[in-house]
Amino acid sequence: MNQRPPLHPAVAATRLAVRQALVERAGSRGDSVEMPLAIVALSGGADSLALAAAAAFVGPRCGWRVGAVIVDHALQAGSAGVAERAAVQARKLGLDPVVVALVSVEARELGPEAAARQARYRALEEHAAVSGASLILTAHTRDDQAEQVLLGIARGSGARSLAGIPPHRGLILRPFLGVTRVDTEAACEAQALEPWLDPHNEDDSYARVRVRHRVLPLLEAELGPGIAAALARTAEQAREDAAAFDEMVNELIEDVVEHAEAGISVSLAVLSSNPAALRHRLIRRVAEAEFGSELSREHTLAIAALVTNWRGQGPIYVPGIKVIRSRGSLLFTRQIGSPREAESS
Amino acid sequence: MNQRPPLHPAVAATRLAVRQALVERAGSRGDSVEMPLAIVALSGGADSLALAAAAAFVGPRCGWRVGAVIVDHALQAGSAGVAERAAVQARKLGLDPVVVALVSVEARELGPEAAARQARYRALEEHAAVSGASLILTAHTRDDQAEQVLLGIARGSGARSLAGIPPHRGLILRPFLGVTRVDTEAACEAQALEPWLDPHNEDDSYARVRVRHRVLPLLEAELGPGIAAALARTAEQAREDAAAFDEMVNELIEDVVEHAEAGISVSLAVLSSNPAALRHRLIRRVAEAEFGSELSREHTLAIAALVTNWRGQGPIYVPGIKVIRSRGSLLFTRQIGSPREAESS
Repeated sequence: MNQRPPLHPAVAATRLAVRQALVERAGSRGDSVEMPLAIVALSGGADSLALAAAAAFVGPRCGWRVGAVIVDHALQAGSAGVAERAAVQARKLGLDPVVVALVSVEARELGPEAAARQARYRALEEHAAVSGASLILTAHTRDDQAEQVLLGIARGSGARSLAGIPPHRGLILRPFLGVTRVDTEAACEAQALEPWLDPHNEDDSYARVRVRHRVLPLLEAELGPGIAAALARTAEQAREDAAAFDEMVNELIEDVVEHAEAGISVSLAVLSSNPAALRHRLIRRVAEAEFGSELSREHTLAIAALVTNWRGQGPIYVPGIKVIRSRGSLLFTRQIGSPREAESS
Repeated sequence: MNQRPPLHPAVAATRLAVRQALVERAGSRGDSVEMPLAIVALSGGADSLALAAAAAFVGPRCGWRVGAVIVDHALQAGSAGVAERAAVQARKLGLDPVVVALVSVEARELGPEAAARQARYRALEEHAAVSGASLILTAHTRDDQAEQVLLGIARGSGARSLAGIPPHRGLILRPFLGVTRVDTEAACEAQALEPWLDPHNEDDSYARVRVRHRVLPLLEAELGPGIAAALARTAEQAREDAAAFDEMVNELIEDVVEHAEAGISVSLAVLSSNPAALRHRLIRRVAEAEFGSELSREHTLAIAALVTNWRGQGPIYVPGIKVIRSRGSLLFTRQIGSPREAESS
């Protein structure tokens, strides 16, 4: 009798995660008679290498072809070599097609991290379009999720910033959000895959790196080892909450907003009959959708006070917008010469 | 011309906070022709001593008499002396009546912290009833709030655990949730009030103390000094969100739940037509209200899968409850001999 060597639990965990994610997204396959294509966003690090290996194994068994795109940001010396090495690993795993995409990152308004991310996702989506891929798999782990939630907490902007990294959006699918980094590293080792160690992951000038190396380990030491899992659970629930409120705001906004000649008029009756959580989101939505303004908590509360704490106060000025209470409505008008306008002139 | 010495900004901040809180709760005064009474929960520590001083100044100017209750938990040697010293300080500030309430803390099922808290609030409420007080003021600061949110994050049970310490509930009012501990300490110093230093606040066996002395300072160092404010903002928004969902669940629950002979029947149509955030809360509410069971996230999702991912799966067993899908409903029945029942036997 043949005896297969027992499967390493970390390898099993990565494969199971990919299988569940692919099965859940069965609808993404499209109508094509060909086997649909999923591409792995591969950096060569432990997380994406373990993902490439798991997808190479699981994909064909679930009816998916699996390829890889290695994005070379050309930000570090030797990045072309790193990309080529990852491409070789991907081909050895049987992925096809395997493509290296060279992108240029211009950090103008965005910070360097955000600019690199934007360039990366644009390259992934372009490549997906060219190759006809119907899914892009990224290797964000539960640790990335915990880090993201902590960074969101530091911003303090409520459920939306606690919601962390979404498990899917558009073509993007993230099968590893429940898998730990310890598991991806163990899975690489068990499969004799040598991950690349990104020096950026050691650069303490990034808040994310400080969270990873100092904040989370301290939280685990002081509050218990379950903290990363708790943060991931918080993200899941915050995302559900944010989605529910988005849906409610979408349903309400049509009835509540009127485009008047003087500006945007929002029904006081609807604002006051809804709970604060919805009232504040309606106000933020109007400011964002109609005026491109992202309101702070303080500004949102000042506008809401026109509804719930009316004492005849004068107009509220927030960046780009003037708000007054007038005949059963809040009237939002564009404010010329406000701080926001002044900044850009 | 008389010149008053300039008011210390920390003293001003504590007085403003008390004034705003009392003005907002103007409705608490009741119908009595007498001036209503607010009692300060005083430990003698910096937070509650600053509160006592601010309330002594502001109260009469807003139409409130102000008294104090010092709860002596009799858990530390010399606690009677500490209580007496705080009582002397309160009388010197002009508070009246000033009462020391001796309580006995029995930490049976609860931990020692929770048991002390329960005994304390019971004593405060009893004294409020006896003295006819219509408000109990407690001195929780923005730092307490930040600590509470971090402890909630460590539990990872969503908006409710992120909501932190409520600014008011029943007779309890917490005017200092926006005031920092640095300010309460400075206010004591500026008013020549000598606070008692609770040795419990240095005892690292309490998670709260570790959060205060190690976790929050590290978060501030790594992520910026705004972290406590961000956590307090998170609490405010989480509380709004939780309140909105509570209201929606209250509105829905009547229509959705039917008491059948076999157990509690919950309409599949309503469960499936609502967003996940509400569906999961409805399931949790039924388990809690009808069976006294607090469901974990995993259990809640397993039950929800009977609605959204029905593949003919068998009954779901969660502590104390069995749930099946049957003819357009989820049917919840009490489960004898389940792990929960077994534990208590």
